[in-house]
This record gives sequence, C-alpha cells and structure tokens, in this order.
Amino acid sequence: MATQILPEFSRKYRSLLEEEMRNRIQILQAPAVIKDAMQYSLEAGGKRIRPLLTFATISAFKKDASIGLDVAVSIEMIHTYSLIHDDLPSMDDDDLRRGKPTNHKVFGEAMAILAGDSLLTYSFQIISEINPAIVNDAKKLEMILELSKAAGAEGMVGGQVADIEAEGRSLELKDLEYVHIRKTGKLLAYSVLAGAILSDADKKTKDYLSHFAHHLGIAFQIQDDILDLEGDQELIGKPVGSDENKNKSTYPALLSIEGARKALQNHIDEAKRNLIASQLDTKILEEITDLVASRNH
Amino acid sequence: MATQILPEFSRKYRSLLEEEMRNRIQILQAPAVIKDAMQYSLEAGGKRIRPLLTFATISAFKKDASIGLDVAVSIEMIHTYSLIHDDLPSMDDDDLRRGKPTNHKVFGEAMAILAGDSLLTYSFQIISEINPAIVNDAKKLEMILELSKAAGAEGMVGGQVADIEAEGRSLELKDLEYVHIRKTGKLLAYSVLAGAILSDADKKTKDYLSHFAHHLGIAFQIQDDILDLEGDQELIGKPVGSDENKNKSTYPALLSIEGARKALQNHIDEAKRNLIASQLDTKILEEITDLVASRNH
Repeated sequence: MATQILPEFSRKYRSLLEEEMRNRIQILQAPAVIKDAMQYSLEAGGKRIRPLLTFATISAFKKDASIGLDVAVSIEMIHTYSLIHDDLPSMDDDDLRRGKPTNHKVFGEAMAILAGDSLLTYSFQIISEINPAIVNDAKKLEMILELSKAAGAEGMVGGQVADIEAEGRSLELKDLEYVHIRKTGKLLAYSVLAGAILSDADKKTKDYLSHFAHHLGIAFQIQDDILDLEGDQELIGKPVGSDENKNKSTYPALLSIEGARKALQNHIDEAKRNLIASQLDTKILEEITDLVASRNH
Repeated sequence: MATQILPEFSRKYRSLLEEEMRNRIQILQAPAVIKDAMQYSLEAGGKRIRPLLTFATISAFKKDASIGLDVAVSIEMIHTYSLIHDDLPSMDDDDLRRGKPTNHKVFGEAMAILAGDSLLTYSFQIISEINPAIVNDAKKLEMILELSKAAGAEGMVGGQVADIEAEGRSLELKDLEYVHIRKTGKLLAYSVLAGAILSDADKKTKDYLSHFAHHLGIAFQIQDDILDLEGDQELIGKPVGSDENKNKSTYPALLSIEGARKALQNHIDEAKRNLIASQLDTKILEEITDLVASRNH
C-alpha cells in the first residue's frame, strides 16, 4: 500500500479550520449565549469532510490549500447549521449527534434555531469579507451564488423537504437519489467546486471535478445507510438501525445489503475515473474517496 | 397639507415587488410544498416598509428606483424569514400574523423552519445574481456584507436572542434599545443603506442616511409598542396587549404612555433633521417617516 498523505494533510488543515472557526465566533459582538450555541455545534467535530474536499481540491492544482480557509469555514458553518436544524424536535427529533447531546438539548429549541440561522447568515458574510488580495470580487460572487444554490430550496433544504415528505412511504431508487443528491450531494459538490473556483479551473476541469463530487456524494450516502444498519453505535454516535426504526427508505432496503455495497463500489470507481481524467494531482482526493468508502463512523 | 406622493409611489413599487417575489418563487426547482410555504408568508402582505425605504432612498438621489428591485426582494425575503421563525412555538408561539394563521399553523413546524431557511439563503443568491449592467461586483459584495451583518448574530438574530433572554425581566431603557436596534433597527437601516450604495452615495451622505434610519427604526418600535397597548385588534391583526400579557418590557411600560409618545416625536424629529442635512430630494422618505409615526397598524 502506498504511503498515505491524507492523515498529515487532514491534521494540518483541520487544526487551521478549527482555530479559524473559534476566532470567527469569538470576534462576534453578540450575546454570549448565541456565540456559545454556535461554537458548541461547530466544535462537536466530525470528519470535516467538506472543508477537506476544498483544501484537497486546491492542492490538486498544486496551489497553497490555505487560500481556501475562509471558504472552508463558511462551508462547515452551513453544514453545521443544517445539522442543528435537522436534529430539532419538529424534524428528526434527535437527542444525540456524534455522541453528544444535540444543540437544542443543551440550549433549548429557540436558541438552536437561532444558532442555525446565524451560522447560515455568517457563512455568506465570511465569503464577502475574504481578503481581496487572495480572491477577487468575481470569484467571491460566483462562490456565494453556487453556495446559495447548493444550500437553499433547490439544494440542501429541498432535499430535507423531500426527505420529510418521504417519511413512512417507500421510495423508488430515483426518488431516494433526488433526496440525497440535494440533502448531502450538493454541498459536497460545492466544496469541490469552491476549490476549483479558487484555483482558476477551466470549464472542462470543473466538469470532471463536478462528476467526481456527484459520485462521491452518492457513495457517501450509501455508506451512511450501510453504517446505520451495521455500524457500531459507539463509533457512529447514534443508535444503530435508527433509520429503519423511523421507517425511512435506504439504499440497503431498496437494493439489499449486497446490492448497496455493489452500488457503493460503482460510484467510488466512477468518482476515481473522473479524478484521473482531470489530469490534476489528485492523490489526496483519491485518499478521501477511499476513506468515504471504508469509513466506520 | 402638501400633496402626498407616497401613496402612488407605494402602489407602483409594491406591485413591482410582489410580482417579482412571485416570479422568484415560481422559478425555483424545488418541492411544491416548500415553494407554497415560502410564497404564503411572502404574500401575507404588510406595509413593505423596508423595500419602500430602499426604493425611496434611490429616488432621493433622483435615480430610477426600479434599479433596487432585486435588493428590495432580498430584504423582504429576509424580513419574512425572521417573522416565520419568530412566530414558531419555541419562540413567540404566535398563531396569527396580520390576521392570518402563521406559517407553522398552516404548513407545520418543520416546513416553517425550512421555509425560513430557504428565504434567508435565497436572499443572498438574489443579490449575487443581479444584472452586472445595473450593479457592479463591488457593490453587490458590499450589500451582501452589510445584509449579513444586519441580519446575523450581530444584528437581527442577536436582537431576537436578547429579546428572549429579557422575557420576564424588567429592562432598563438602554437594554430595551439594545434589543430593538438589533431586532428591527439594523434591517431597516440596511434597507436605506442598500439604496445609498446603489445610488453611489458618498460617505457623508451615507452617514446622514444612516442616522436617519437609526432614529426611524427606534420610532418604528415605539409606535409598535404603543399600538400593542392601544391599537385596534382588527387593524393590527393580533390581540391588543399581547406584549403586556407576555410580560415583555416596552417603551410605554418604561416611560409611561405620554413619555413614549414624546420619545417617538423626538426620534421622528431627529430622523427628519438628518434627511434635511443630506440635501437629497427626500420628500418620499419624509412621508414614510410620517407614516411610521402615525400608522394605526
């Protein structure tokens, strides 16, 4: 097996990311409780897969990945807001997230809603404030446009709506993909696209990366469903089988567990084919892809 | 009394605004229910005071107010999102808004939260997409920055947090102003500032307009509190005295009703002084100011 460079890359940029997120919350002139609520969920951890995709994409262009720091922060804030709102009693009603009490269990529902609202709002501010010596105005606006499309009614929020509407109904594969492409796929794809925008990628390269991200996103969700069915509760931080208990459609339910594993492998293969076609230096992106396929939490 | 030009101006631009908001929702590629939920609250009406402030500010520079249409739409979407989230059971728990059932009473809590989230997200998209022949990139980014500050943890959301924290406690005047400057003042001020940015205002003119908007915002809130105490339930669309029942601090409670009326007049006078000092053609802005002071709903 070739030497892995992702672990070192991941340690370095996660640390940069987490320090910058803390700074960003700390400097806010706002009531302490909302800053605490925002920070609580930002530091609840997770794999930081979206920011890592941005950093790794920039690296693939042999550029300094740290030019993506502000954008990575804004993406992780949007992702975190979506988790806070998804966990609310009126949505998925989850008490635990990554083994810790969810935001509304600690701060109450009102504060959790507002913490999500302010993380979402702040993410756009952070892009607009990027040092103009690093990112010009046209690129900032392209990122704001793509982020709002990925996160809004046509993207992540639309996916959550479709997911809620699907509860208790059994979906066909195409409907399940409609949900997941929007609910998780579009923000993952944006994370890659933002790295490409920051690296001045041409149209053709953006297309390869976008296909890569599309397949990675579906693979990510299939693995999520498999883990929910078979994972270790300690590692995934929520009860195993909770999707099944909520009567949610999943890839294993539709395709059988073996069929889901096969679909996962197909999407991983497609993702990698697009990386190779891009002719970039995609070693770290490939390692992230392997991680998605083999992760156990 | 001089001839009023606001009624005709208001009719024209409200109609433009409402048509454009409908178009914006209609073109979304999203599940029907989320589009319905967004549209329901957007068309629930209200005075459209924020968009009118943007249009009237552009007019004060003797420019075509319709260059502010997209920005006006984005402001009304942010305002509407804040009403939807404020009305939720875990926040103010209001069943009626302007005499109609609140969003969550019609669409359920989950959908109301998501409708708010997508209106907030869409508002940034709409600014980023403005025709570059009308607004250049630098101005779009300035508006996105100022909007996110006005709406986020340092602005509107921070005000809502402070308002929740104040419930059941009696506030001093400065704490009450902390709440209102953030909860309603900053978005009102942004509505004026956005018009100034679109009109290429210089720093000094922006400052006069910003002081105008500051005083207008406080006047607006004082009048709100007076109406809550003395208004006509039919006209204001919610039970009279509902703030009192919730044990909320108000201007009349702190200053007496006569003191509140006097403070209202002082802020209206200050607002108008700043309009005069700006040396712009502020006839419509003055009429909006008079409307705020004398409105009965």
